[in-house]
Amino acid sequence: MSSERLHNFSAGPASLPQEVILAAKRELPVYRGTGASVMEISHRSPAYTAIEASARDRLRRLLGLGDKWHILFLGGGASMQFHQVPLNFLPPGGTADYVVTGTWARKAFVEAAKLGRPNLAASGEEDNYARIPAQSKWQQREDSRYLHYCSNNTIFGTQFHRTPEADCPLVCDASSDFLSHPIDLDRYGLIYAGAQKNIGPAGVTVVLIRDDFLNNRNSGLPTMLDYGTHAAKCFNTPPVYAVYMVEKVLGWLEAQGGIAGIQGINTQKAGLLYDAIDASELYRGVAHYDDRSQMNVTFRLTDPALEPRFCVEANEEGLLGLKGHRSVGGMRASIYNACPLEAVEALVDFMREFECRSGHAADANV
Amino acid sequence: MSSERLHNFSAGPASLPQEVILAAKRELPVYRGTGASVMEISHRSPAYTAIEASARDRLRRLLGLGDKWHILFLGGGASMQFHQVPLNFLPPGGTADYVVTGTWARKAFVEAAKLGRPNLAASGEEDNYARIPAQSKWQQREDSRYLHYCSNNTIFGTQFHRTPEADCPLVCDASSDFLSHPIDLDRYGLIYAGAQKNIGPAGVTVVLIRDDFLNNRNSGLPTMLDYGTHAAKCFNTPPVYAVYMVEKVLGWLEAQGGIAGIQGINTQKAGLLYDAIDASELYRGVAHYDDRSQMNVTFRLTDPALEPRFCVEANEEGLLGLKGHRSVGGMRASIYNACPLEAVEALVDFMREFECRSGHAADANV
Repeated sequence: MSSERLHNFSAGPASLPQEVILAAKRELPVYRGTGASVMEISHRSPAYTAIEASARDRLRRLLGLGDKWHILFLGGGASMQFHQVPLNFLPPGGTADYVVTGTWARKAFVEAAKLGRPNLAASGEEDNYARIPAQSKWQQREDSRYLHYCSNNTIFGTQFHRTPEADCPLVCDASSDFLSHPIDLDRYGLIYAGAQKNIGPAGVTVVLIRDDFLNNRNSGLPTMLDYGTHAAKCFNTPPVYAVYMVEKVLGWLEAQGGIAGIQGINTQKAGLLYDAIDASELYRGVAHYDDRSQMNVTFRLTDPALEPRFCVEANEEGLLGLKGHRSVGGMRASIYNACPLEAVEALVDFMREFECRSGHAADANV
Repeated sequence: MSSERLHNFSAGPASLPQEVILAAKRELPVYRGTGASVMEISHRSPAYTAIEASARDRLRRLLGLGDKWHILFLGGGASMQFHQVPLNFLPPGGTADYVVTGTWARKAFVEAAKLGRPNLAASGEEDNYARIPAQSKWQQREDSRYLHYCSNNTIFGTQFHRTPEADCPLVCDASSDFLSHPIDLDRYGLIYAGAQKNIGPAGVTVVLIRDDFLNNRNSGLPTMLDYGTHAAKCFNTPPVYAVYMVEKVLGWLEAQGGIAGIQGINTQKAGLLYDAIDASELYRGVAHYDDRSQMNVTFRLTDPALEPRFCVEANEEGLLGLKGHRSVGGMRASIYNACPLEAVEALVDFMREFECRSGHAADANV
């Protein structure tokens, strides 16, 4: 079996920086003189608490998080947040705005509707979520406790390029574009992100909560689902190894020049790929031009019968994970922070070559 | 820094088999020709689904689980189960028995009491949980939907050596003795275990649910907290790497002769340690003799002033994680499945030597 690392466009769990994986390998079977691996030491041990503290410090530096923000590392996945957010913050008898721009945002709305009466402020469903509904058409409620949205829609390849306007605090599912661009923190009450796209392996969800927002939560909550429990102290065993990997990814991100640095590279990567799509006769982007995601590039072939062949041949060339989600079809290249520029260059080269071979290239049509 | 692996008696996260850690190391940065590590591949990929299927197969073989049992790998830790069990199974207006034999069992009762009216069938609190209350004194309810208990009490070092008698199905928090001894499955409706004691790293909780018990759950549940969601399909991204490690630990366990094999070794390890305690003038066990745990051996020194020195010197000898929990004091040696016999032998040697040096040995008093 080949031990070569290939170009990985998986939508999540997704590519991690190679140097992070190699550093983790070096720290097996013994972590820094502790006599055991990180997977085997107490979450109350100095070695582990230093890892978690470093992860928090790095996040604070990367995002400019002030003292008003709590940083939580929770298990259960971002899907648990779909329930936990309204459980804590949807007021009994009150409401909150939900903007539904894709599958995950819709799931968040459905969970809130199990607990109370969220307001469906906007939905992109009739366009099969190919665009972000214009904010001018949203139906926001004046008494909304918060506005929930999903900043990047992995499946459909759309992304908010402007922060939503609201009189209430924003709550954002940032799972698939967390730390890929700056955030205007003052507008938010809570931001959550499953790690397995941009910041680490599956198994931990980072939750940022502003203190004043946290203090207005509902009472009588189950202990594990009360954000206050985890903001106050390390209540139970965290997903130790996942947090350890996140700490390393955050260190790598700082070495890339932080969020400004990675945003520059992300813009370059996405630009290369969308330019290749727009310049061709064979490929067409799925998402509306203005709402195109810098993280997940969705595209179809003008001749859909060729799509399975595209994926098979790409795979043979070492370009992995390009098959689109079944609800969109076609292809999806997930090019999160850790996806290197070289991977996108290799994909673009393959796309050009495939187009020529299939007789659909612009010049082949001359 | 030393790269030596030391003897690790941490209560959890705890020691894993060295060969498992080394196998995981070999599969970084590329897992079996997939072009990426296990942390970076889709949870829907053939490579990952094969890992999870193998983990289930191994569990079915080890426990003799028939088709009636669902096997779930959930995030969130066993503490989430304290809420999730009564949310699914405590009937509105009905009750369930709770046997409180330690800190974790008490937490489970407290969470159930947030949702309904569980019945406190027994509590060992007045003995500071040094013994399991005799079942003849339990106050069980005839209309109990289930009886919840914790089979091994990590902090206090007690363990159930007989399965509780009940007319209703048992629900067991088996986190700290899972797969260390056989289980009489027919008596149970649900068994759960956080991985980080006996079966893997922190970040995944194994839940076994019998089909007929599952079918009697409450309705209108939050999707992520409904056991039915996860029994029906892979609903969201599981903690991929933790499941991968669990699969390897289960393979290691099969190679030890399965549960019968490991139980023999566990009995030998615990016997060595308790014999050393009972034969000495310096050490005394904390737990009541009949209820002593084979997983967590709690002991004090007859001269408590020596206890800090014991821990420091043990640590210097490469015997890690022996400090007892603050609510008991003294020492605790956690000797789960993966703790090798050699580690216990080294601890017993150290204990004898420490006793001689401190002038408390039986023969030193002659």
